[in-house]
Amino acid sequence: MDLRHTRRLFVPDRLKAGTPLTLAAEPAHRLIHVLRMREGDIIRLFNGHDGEFAASVTNLSKKEVALRVEEALRPQENGPDVWLCCAPIKKIHFDTMLEKATELGVSEIQPILTQRTQIRDVNGDRAYLLCREAAEQSERLAVPAIGAPVTLDDMVSVFPPDRALIVCAEWGNADPIWDALQQPALRAFSKAAILTGPEGGLTADELETLRHRPHTFFVRLGPRILRADTAALAALVCWQAIQGDWKTIG
Amino acid sequence: MDLRHTRRLFVPDRLKAGTPLTLAAEPAHRLIHVLRMREGDIIRLFNGHDGEFAASVTNLSKKEVALRVEEALRPQENGPDVWLCCAPIKKIHFDTMLEKATELGVSEIQPILTQRTQIRDVNGDRAYLLCREAAEQSERLAVPAIGAPVTLDDMVSVFPPDRALIVCAEWGNADPIWDALQQPALRAFSKAAILTGPEGGLTADELETLRHRPHTFFVRLGPRILRADTAALAALVCWQAIQGDWKTIG
Repeated sequence: MDLRHTRRLFVPDRLKAGTPLTLAAEPAHRLIHVLRMREGDIIRLFNGHDGEFAASVTNLSKKEVALRVEEALRPQENGPDVWLCCAPIKKIHFDTMLEKATELGVSEIQPILTQRTQIRDVNGDRAYLLCREAAEQSERLAVPAIGAPVTLDDMVSVFPPDRALIVCAEWGNADPIWDALQQPALRAFSKAAILTGPEGGLTADELETLRHRPHTFFVRLGPRILRADTAALAALVCWQAIQGDWKTIG
Repeated sequence: MDLRHTRRLFVPDRLKAGTPLTLAAEPAHRLIHVLRMREGDIIRLFNGHDGEFAASVTNLSKKEVALRVEEALRPQENGPDVWLCCAPIKKIHFDTMLEKATELGVSEIQPILTQRTQIRDVNGDRAYLLCREAAEQSERLAVPAIGAPVTLDDMVSVFPPDRALIVCAEWGNADPIWDALQQPALRAFSKAAILTGPEGGLTADELETLRHRPHTFFVRLGPRILRADTAALAALVCWQAIQGDWKTIG
């Protein structure tokens, strides 16, 4: 059976072939009203741990949906380990950034408060729902984790030493991203984090502080000024294409 | 004088240092109500032909603005020659695609009607305004041209032989985009067009037809399913990073 075009749903429950599963109010609501499933329909489920499974809808009521988990379709795999550390921006553009970063396979999104960050609150629930939907639609097996906002100083002070920090800089000393990603010093890291500033960019002070960190690489994304969300996505695209999982497809 | 953060405005008029310029109703309205300029303020102007100029506001009235074009700031340069041939998609995502393609330096946007294209109308005026605003904000010196929608067959039948056609394919024989863009056969072309389908992608028939064209390169953008707008932007990013003007910045 070709299940490629079957709808997908993230569920918080453990998944095991041949077992029944009862969905609680929120996923049940989505299954009925958003995905418009009916008894007997087949759906695909994933939970970020157990891989992807086919499941059949065995019973529908207003508040509850009973499913039967059928065969396993894909084992769990977590994909490349790349974070997006991004200053929050205006809602419509932040939504775009969350959705597209998820499609592009980001593993974790960490909002960063910088000197020029105007928007300092992130609605974590809303961000999670956007990322979950993007994960469902893009065939991912996990929803990216979303951190609570931290200051740039705090981020830097606890930043893990085994992860490259790739800073998108609009000006100053920075290599074209394609050159930077080819450097052996950067390629040595299998884990990376991409840092993008708010509209207006990082300040000279912030860039100077970052310049003294080890394992930090400054990249430029062409001669034009990109919106903050465009810059984040462009850097993620380049990283996935060169260092991530875009090279290993069949 | 550092004019880097001065607002920019596209005008249809010819620009020459030391000459007066009267803006008609629409640009005058934007200058007053959107950019909130006042008499004596400095603005940057470009028209897609003459480069970028500083200009001072000499007189404001309700319907007309008088400017004086001051010194030339940048000579005209047209950037890499890359088209985006894209199926129209739902408005909010098409808007994102237009805006970000402009930031990423696309030279021409050509809407393409494919077998699975649900949305067959493009509001050309709206599209132009979005692209113009993105050009103003991204420091471009020209607004990308936007074609009237044509069918895929018509596009292919008049497609210029001196331009590589890069087809984003979700499945079938296609090279990872980074590999494809390194191939000498593709690098031989200084002009390119990126073709992306609607949600649901191009059909097997369409891909088969394209496969028989010369100078046509099939690329894959990783193992996840990307939205049509994300795919278009990802392909443009990779092209600019490798073949376009992202390598030649100071």
